[in-house]
Order: sequence, then structure tokens, then C-alpha cells
Amino acid sequence: MKKKDFYFKLTTKFKKARLGKITTSRGIIDTPAFMPVGTIGTVKGLFVDDLINTGSQIILGNTYHLMLRPGTKILERFGGLHNYMNWKKPILTDSGGFQIMSLSKFNKIDKNIGAIFRSHLDGKKFILSPEKSIKIQKSINSDILMVLDVCPKLTNNRKTLNNTIDISTKWAKRCKIEFGNNKKKALFGIIQGGLYKDLRIDSLKKLINIGFDGYAIGGLAVGETQKEMFKTVKNITNYMPINKPRYLMGVGTPADILGAVKEGVDMFDCVMPTRSGRTGLAFTWEGKVNLKNSKYKNDKSPLDSKCNLRELNSYSKSYLNHLIKNNELLASMLISLHNINFYQQFMYEIRKSIKSRTFNKFYNRYINLFY
Amino acid sequence: MKKKDFYFKLTTKFKKARLGKITTSRGIIDTPAFMPVGTIGTVKGLFVDDLINTGSQIILGNTYHLMLRPGTKILERFGGLHNYMNWKKPILTDSGGFQIMSLSKFNKIDKNIGAIFRSHLDGKKFILSPEKSIKIQKSINSDILMVLDVCPKLTNNRKTLNNTIDISTKWAKRCKIEFGNNKKKALFGIIQGGLYKDLRIDSLKKLINIGFDGYAIGGLAVGETQKEMFKTVKNITNYMPINKPRYLMGVGTPADILGAVKEGVDMFDCVMPTRSGRTGLAFTWEGKVNLKNSKYKNDKSPLDSKCNLRELNSYSKSYLNHLIKNNELLASMLISLHNINFYQQFMYEIRKSIKSRTFNKFYNRYINLFY
Repeated sequence: MKKKDFYFKLTTKFKKARLGKITTSRGIIDTPAFMPVGTIGTVKGLFVDDLINTGSQIILGNTYHLMLRPGTKILERFGGLHNYMNWKKPILTDSGGFQIMSLSKFNKIDKNIGAIFRSHLDGKKFILSPEKSIKIQKSINSDILMVLDVCPKLTNNRKTLNNTIDISTKWAKRCKIEFGNNKKKALFGIIQGGLYKDLRIDSLKKLINIGFDGYAIGGLAVGETQKEMFKTVKNITNYMPINKPRYLMGVGTPADILGAVKEGVDMFDCVMPTRSGRTGLAFTWEGKVNLKNSKYKNDKSPLDSKCNLRELNSYSKSYLNHLIKNNELLASMLISLHNINFYQQFMYEIRKSIKSRTFNKFYNRYINLFY
Repeated sequence: MKKKDFYFKLTTKFKKARLGKITTSRGIIDTPAFMPVGTIGTVKGLFVDDLINTGSQIILGNTYHLMLRPGTKILERFGGLHNYMNWKKPILTDSGGFQIMSLSKFNKIDKNIGAIFRSHLDGKKFILSPEKSIKIQKSINSDILMVLDVCPKLTNNRKTLNNTIDISTKWAKRCKIEFGNNKKKALFGIIQGGLYKDLRIDSLKKLINIGFDGYAIGGLAVGETQKEMFKTVKNITNYMPINKPRYLMGVGTPADILGAVKEGVDMFDCVMPTRSGRTGLAFTWEGKVNLKNSKYKNDKSPLDSKCNLRELNSYSKSYLNHLIKNNELLASMLISLHNINFYQQFMYEIRKSIKSRTFNKFYNRYINLFY
């Protein structure tokens, strides 16, 4: 069977909210889509077949983490991350920019060279140039690659942000050249500009001039308020190309996602469902449930009585409370799986509501549930 | 459907090795049987439905651990451990004797009262009498209960061992009375006597006088050599009732089990497959595989190419090496599941070889593999 070219189709809209479909050589992605994060080649605590059963159609791999462990040599030996981790569906890789800002030590941006940093694991020095980032993402063999950007910490300093945009734009160009011409894969540009509308538009225009298969909103999920995030997203989506996927990086709670979908975003990724799963925090249709709370000690009800995936509805909150308090592996396994499954159900309901033009109702019902 | 009475049927023998079937109200157990250990109500790192798919027909719960967490009140609320942890098949509970010896602090044996000890978790004082142990096991609602015994550390002191037998015998009687008359459940006696044949026989005879539904060999797996263990088992199985299940407590490696089956033992339990799983040690038909070893870094082969349970044969040793080195949950999940599955396959092959009278061949092939 001939592998399909990367392609985005906008199916329908409800006001700004969009329903779409991304075609890749490894499968379809219905948008708005949530991408579970598989940091170093595993979505923490989930079996791959369970992940598929949650309805996940694409996962994210972290270039920064994967270049450190297991490294590109091993990934190349396996023909990429898909074979290595036994995940046959599409993979999007970030460029490493965000982790260099948030995780690595002594990071320095040299606009001509790239990012220079020391590994957060052993202090080893690395240079990540735009070309190198793309090469690593090719070794990972991901389906959607991201340009290397400079991702600043939250700041109101326009000079810093302007400088970020300048370097990011130059690097984006170099990434595009390194990416070359490959219709089976996609390269997304990343919009910077902090919380400023004019800077965001400036960054976007420069990226559109280069031309990408999709556009991401970067530099958010770095500590701004939800209101600031929604406003920034609202300001920029009005200017983003209609016929390309829009990806809000690193976001967020179900409510964050809902609010951004309302403004026309198509793709999301976040560690929240799995990270929360490991600390006993569950996302449900009734809101957040902190299973460590002793009020659940005698609670016989499951997190979701309708969910029979891996018999999740056969486990009481009482039992989960017992497991999480005693640091049992099964707690992380059950709650992480529940959370990923909930996120995918939530996305499914979002898509359904756009299609049936009941998005407003859905939005009003859930936008304030996850505080 | 009427619940079935507890019943053991010896199907066939090959020399001393026995093939049998235990009937319980919650299902059949083919013997020789391996019981995965579900310490506080979870076989560490395994989903219940996976556990069933490994062919596990019974698991073990630890009375000592369960009385501390979640405690009998919660277990009673759920009608026992089966409902609480969503495991519908039989459960055997130990009596707490072994953990009081090995885990608790400041433990003291008062032959008239019981075991007095402090919790290894918070130092809280507990008294576990023979009656209390049975009552807790009834709260757990286990299918096979064990008498509370005094489990001494490894010793050659005959006086100590004699004293142990005296107290254990008295407690066994009290347990029998507390257990009462319940044909749906079983109560097993526990033979003590260290490595001495005459003491073991003395202990066994006293237990037979009281009369139990099965007989366990206790006080082993406490640091003796495999040779000493095999000899002790060999010496006592000759005297054990033919028509009752024989259970060697806390044993062991696949080879330990194989050697004890040769001497006529029917039941085993051990934390080894799951504990090893969490440290990256796998049991395979080619022997032990320490997945932390960097020689597996580039090894594309799976642990068992024939095993498609949860796609286990789709994960390379290279990938497992990567996961275990980085403390990923999925490493514990995959390797623990593999190990439990291997143990159950091993038991299946043992049973098949007894039936087809090829046990000797199987024995010779695998008895030295797991060093």
C-alpha cells in the first residue's frame, strides 16, 4: 500500500472552533487532537495497546530527552522510535527548545551556532543547532517535526522577545532547508512573541513567509495565567492560515484545551494526565479527584462507572486511595490510564459537539470544572 | 450455581512428582501450582486481567500486610479482598507468622497470647493471636487459610526448634477451633522443624492428629542452601498425607520449584518474579537475563519470541534495557508480567511433563538453568 502524503483537511467549523483530519503515512489524526507525551519512548505507565484503546492517534516524543537516552545511534538501528517502542501510529517530535530552557543547565543561545547546554542528567555538554535538531528528529523518524526555536521564560521584556523572534525565525529557515522536501512528513513552525499580540503576529508572518506544514504557538504554558493564555491564543489564531493545523504546545488541563479549541486550535500535548496519574490526581467528568484524600478511603464508587477499559470501572476510589497511599505501581498504572482515557474521551466529545453544533453547551458546562 | 466444596484430587504421579487439581468455590487450581504474591492487594505491577491471562489460578495475600493496610474494616466493607482488588479467583492467605519474624520490630512470642510485635511502618503495637489471625483471614475472605505458626530464623538449635514446634502445634489447634467447620474453605497446617528430619516428622504427626485440609512446609526460604532445602523437603514429603495438597511456602526460583515438585510438592508462592521484574531481572527458557547489563543495549531480540501476551514479544532487550536504566514504570510492568507469565508457563510444562511421563527429561534440562 502506498504511503499517504501529509495532509490537513478542515471538515467543519463552529464559530472559530475547528473540526479536521490530519492524514499521515502512519494513520489519521482527528482534530482537535490530544497527544500523550512519550518522553523517552514510553508514555509513562501505559502499555502501548492500552494507549491505542484510549483512542490516542498520535503521541509526542521529546527530542531533548531522546538525544540523551537512548540516543540516535540506537534509534537509527531500529529505524526510528516507532519500531523501538512498538508504537505504529504517528509521532510528533518537539525540537528540544523547550527542554533546553526548562531542564538543561548553563544553557546559552548562540544565534549563529544554536543552543549550547549541559545535560540535566550528567552535565555533559551538547550543542543543538537547527540542523542537528532536524537530523535527530529524522533519526527518531517522526512524522511531524518541529523547528528549533528559542523558548524564553515568561517575560514582558519586548527587547528579549523581539530578539527571540529574530533568532527563532533564522533557525526556522535553517530547519526548513535541513528538512528538505518530504511530502510524507511535516515540518511545523513555532510562533513566539510572549503575551504581545503585535509580536506574535510579527513572528507568525515571518514563519508564513518561509512556509510550513503547520503552525505551533510556543512560549506558553510557562507560568502565565489561563486568562493570559486564552487571550494570547485568541489574538493570534485570527491570523493563522486556515488550511494548516494549529498546535498549542504543552497545554494543558481539559479546560485549557477547551478554551483554546474555542479559539481555533487543533492540536495539544501535555504531561498532565500521566504526571497527575502518578501522584493520584484523576480527571473525571465530575472534575478533579485527588485520590490521596482520605475522604475516599471508604468510597466504593469507581472514577468512571461507564469506562470498562481494562476493567477501570471495577476499581473503587477506596482501592485506588489504598494503592496510591502505599506507592503501589498499580496506582500509577490505573490512574494514568484513566486520565489519558479521560482526555481522549474529552477530545472525542469536543469533536462531536463541534460537528453537532452543540460546542457552546459543552464549553459552558466544562470550562470551569477543572479548577 | 451451588458453590463447590474445597477438594483435592490427585490425578497422576510420576515417581514422587504429583499432578492434581484443587477445587474451590471460586475455581479450579491445577497443581503443581505457582501462586503470585499480592502483598497488600495487588500483584505488584500487574493488571488483574493480565494476571489471569498468564494462567494464574490463585494468588496469595499477606495477612500481616493486609491487617496494617488497608485493614480489616475496609476489607469487610467490600466483603473481602476479592471484591476489593477485583480478583475473582481463589486467594490463599498466609497467617502473618513469616512477616512477623522477617519484617516487624521487637517481635515477641508469648505462647499463651500469640505474637506481639510492632508494625514495620509506624511502630504501632499489635498482638496477633491464633484466633485473631484466623479472624483476619476470614475478613479477607480467603479461600485457603493458614494457621498462625512460629517461624524461626534459620537455626540448628534443636531446643529452639522443638519449642517452635510445641507452640506452633498449640496455636494450630486454636486456629482449627476458630476456623470451625466450613467446607467451602480450607485450613492448612504448617510443618516446622528446621533442617532436621525427625523434628519435621514430629511436627507433621502432631498436625495430622489435629487434621487439616492441606499441609505446608514452613520455615524454609530463610537462608538455607538449595541442597538443604531439597533434602528437608525430600525427607518430609515421604510422610505427608497423599490425599492432601502440599505447599512449600515462599519458594522460589523456577529450579527450586522444579526440585521440590520432584519430591512431591504441589503448591508454591514467591515474590521473586515481580521483585526481580522491578530490578530488571528476567526469567526465560534460556536462563536469567539481567536487563540492566549494557550488553543488551543493542540487542533486538525479545525475551521470548513466542510470547504475544500484551505484545511482550514486540519489545526488544535493547528497549527494556533503556527503560530499566531510566527507571521507567513500563520496565517494571513489562518485566514483571513477563516473569509471572514465564513462571506459569514453567508450571504448565511441569504439569504436562508429569502427565506425559517426561518429567525426568524436563527436570534434567532445567534444574541447573537458573543459577
